[in-house]
Amino acid sequence: MGEFRVLEVKQSVFADNDKRADEVRSVLKEKKVFLLNLMSSPGSGKTTTLTRTIEKLKDELRIGVMEADIDSDVDAKTISDLGVKAIQLHTGGMCHLDADMTMQGLEGLETGDVDLAILENVGNLVCPAEFDTGAVKNAMILSVPEGHDKPLKYPLMFSICDVVLINKIDVLPYFDFDMEACKKYIFMRNPNAKIIPISARTGEGVEEWTNWLKEQVLEWQK
Amino acid sequence: MGEFRVLEVKQSVFADNDKRADEVRSVLKEKKVFLLNLMSSPGSGKTTTLTRTIEKLKDELRIGVMEADIDSDVDAKTISDLGVKAIQLHTGGMCHLDADMTMQGLEGLETGDVDLAILENVGNLVCPAEFDTGAVKNAMILSVPEGHDKPLKYPLMFSICDVVLINKIDVLPYFDFDMEACKKYIFMRNPNAKIIPISARTGEGVEEWTNWLKEQVLEWQK
Repeated sequence: MGEFRVLEVKQSVFADNDKRADEVRSVLKEKKVFLLNLMSSPGSGKTTTLTRTIEKLKDELRIGVMEADIDSDVDAKTISDLGVKAIQLHTGGMCHLDADMTMQGLEGLETGDVDLAILENVGNLVCPAEFDTGAVKNAMILSVPEGHDKPLKYPLMFSICDVVLINKIDVLPYFDFDMEACKKYIFMRNPNAKIIPISARTGEGVEEWTNWLKEQVLEWQK
Repeated sequence: MGEFRVLEVKQSVFADNDKRADEVRSVLKEKKVFLLNLMSSPGSGKTTTLTRTIEKLKDELRIGVMEADIDSDVDAKTISDLGVKAIQLHTGGMCHLDADMTMQGLEGLETGDVDLAILENVGNLVCPAEFDTGAVKNAMILSVPEGHDKPLKYPLMFSICDVVLINKIDVLPYFDFDMEACKKYIFMRNPNAKIIPISARTGEGVEEWTNWLKEQVLEWQK
């Protein structure tokens, strides 16, 4: 095995977002709106998973979606075509949403008649993990082609997520993806994580996910 | 088609990295070291592509690799096992490297005997695009499973890259990936982009990539 050095290169980061996030949750609790923060890498299937989720739940819950993107409106187009409330949030180059940006989004979405608000965060496994958006639950998608080692490399993201959807299981035969190792690495980061393998393309596993999500919403609204 | 609003949520960003990046390039020019900044989403195959690249070029060029990661040393382990100089840069949670962090990395790597230094940036399509690292050329990998629409959603990344490797072409039959549309979208962002479809797994297309890279290095060292 070769030799290498580890060099720590650092830069300061800022804080005080947590208080604002708690305020967002208070408002949501009062209005009985459940906010899900959905995160993933680019291209892991957030929008397709969201489409499946909406199809399953839209007759039972009133749903509103915030599509955060640096640019482009393609996802909000896709979602609004499903007949649910949607808003596109442009982050002006920002790589994540913080609690106050989320609050602006919720106000823009007008959540008075919404049970379940979903924030599709910017496709990024790093920055969104660092900022509590005020969501009631955090969910992330890891897709099979990304590899089972990702919990080792993006520890914070996996540690803050209540649920991890392992997406694109329909292509498992074509990738060297070790499902058991992946689960083990996720539990290393977060022993309480709920892990649900799905294929947003074929629909496999989606019902377990939507059942879980619906339970969370009803629990929050009690 | 449904209706939706576009809401601009913004936050200020900082600047002044460009001057430092030019200084880095001056030092590199003087020392005849070519620096490649390699970027991509998590899981698109940066380390595997790098492995193939090193295998092809290590007898012709003296190579040094900087592996930037938030945490974990797995990539530097993989690379140093190939017999080239490697250093792991921990970014302390930072989602990108700026020019000064890159300079710290180059000093840590000790590039006196290196022709080609490669920075494997943090897996992220957003933040690394915003910071000139001082690299001579920027390269990115887009993998087939991520989808052909990514240049629409991460415009800056595609616009700043000199070369785009479209990786994992061995799994093209299993994904709805439109190669021609992808190329069109990339050229929308950057008409001068060099696009090379590859499979780091099978080796297909890798030689075109390493030939291009070698030419760039020799040109820089003139």
